Amino acid sequence: MSGSVVIAGIGPGDDDLVTPQVTDALAKATDIVGYFPYVDRIAPRDGLTRHGSDNRVEIDRSQHALEMALEGKHVVVVSSGDPGVFAMAAAVFEALENGPKDWLNIDISVLPGITAMLAASARAGAPLGHDFCAINLSDNLKPWSIIEKRLRLAAEADFAMAFYNPRSKSRPEGFERTLEILKDACGDDRPVIFARNVSRPDETIKIVPLSQTTPDMADMRTMVLVGSSQTRIIEREIGPIVYTPRSLTK
Amino acid sequence: MSGSVVIAGIGPGDDDLVTPQVTDALAKATDIVGYFPYVDRIAPRDGLTRHGSDNRVEIDRSQHALEMALEGKHVVVVSSGDPGVFAMAAAVFEALENGPKDWLNIDISVLPGITAMLAASARAGAPLGHDFCAINLSDNLKPWSIIEKRLRLAAEADFAMAFYNPRSKSRPEGFERTLEILKDACGDDRPVIFARNVSRPDETIKIVPLSQTTPDMADMRTMVLVGSSQTRIIEREIGPIVYTPRSLTK
Repeated sequence: MSGSVVIAGIGPGDDDLVTPQVTDALAKATDIVGYFPYVDRIAPRDGLTRHGSDNRVEIDRSQHALEMALEGKHVVVVSSGDPGVFAMAAAVFEALENGPKDWLNIDISVLPGITAMLAASARAGAPLGHDFCAINLSDNLKPWSIIEKRLRLAAEADFAMAFYNPRSKSRPEGFERTLEILKDACGDDRPVIFARNVSRPDETIKIVPLSQTTPDMADMRTMVLVGSSQTRIIEREIGPIVYTPRSLTK
Repeated sequence: MSGSVVIAGIGPGDDDLVTPQVTDALAKATDIVGYFPYVDRIAPRDGLTRHGSDNRVEIDRSQHALEMALEGKHVVVVSSGDPGVFAMAAAVFEALENGPKDWLNIDISVLPGITAMLAASARAGAPLGHDFCAINLSDNLKPWSIIEKRLRLAAEADFAMAFYNPRSKSRPEGFERTLEILKDACGDDRPVIFARNVSRPDETIKIVPLSQTTPDMADMRTMVLVGSSQTRIIEREIGPIVYTPRSLTK
């Protein structure tokens, strides 16, 4: 009996942002694996076993999914946002590459999802409407010197920037340094968007000029978007719109 | 009577990648505006007027949508992929900012979609699993010197890269120069993914080492993803997987 692993993006929180392709995969699963708050989003049903696990055990969870697939199970690994953006797809492939050879025959697929940066961008307007980059600010996975280098090069390239995992309780200093580097490197007062719990009932969107940003404006549930030098704000009575024009005009 | 404009991402092609949020907005629309192949994807029904228009008239189309909203219509502007990524959202906001003042009171929202780079990434594995950038290679909207500068800085930052609109019939030389710059700047033989017509019945995914890439491998229906120095290929009998590990290991 031949099993499968589907790594599925369940979007940033709102069920209306889950694609029919992912909904269909969840309906066919025998087992669901993932960080427990994401697994909890999937309704229990007969024939489905839900395996919620803690944060920071991505490789264990991936190995578990691959082992179950080899036993013939149809496993869905649920991932917040899009699984390919700072999420579970790379973890599963790391486990696969370092695992037993017979895992290489497992049927594995990745189903895209709405990643937090694009949900946040949509709520603010279109700040990523021109060239941009996405950086994971967590320094669990790379040295701070690399993050700093990338921030400076991204500013020099005049990319809009999207930051995932900007600030954890255990390492709050990284985001403070990020803001210092940007204030130094960008040389102008571009808009910064703090989008917390995007698409959830308690969503908040704050638009703050770079010079007025402070580290406490972000936590691990916040997506931070920084405009390029071209990014504009349209002021309206019903709320501002932040967008980056398609053309380079200055 | 108060109308609205919804700028909705209909994903890269497969209807199974359209979010329920977008499907719901389309069901409530009185008018649909967009590039005609995208408008043609929406089934006709009583009470719905479909306004397909040609490519390169994004501002005219945006003005038309805003004018109809002011007349009380519920207009959906359909956009391929995600509307905020090299698509219709920035165009609508450009029209809004440069239009009559009463447009500022129009109810406008953006609904995210699955953008081509993430659909392509999912089909290849997880090449964008670490920090990355997205660049529109069309030089309609910015000078080539800026594109070249961004390519070199992105290589220096060791971002994986996603290229939209890599090569048009009228300007094929840009992509040729892009490949030359990357071969020069990257200094190693990283994987390049050519994903054409992603999620459509005639989808093709080619994985080619950078040294063996040629300009004719891309056209305007191709998404090009370039790995970082860390990107790996898992060779399997059932087809390769390309992924970029979460951690920086070398």
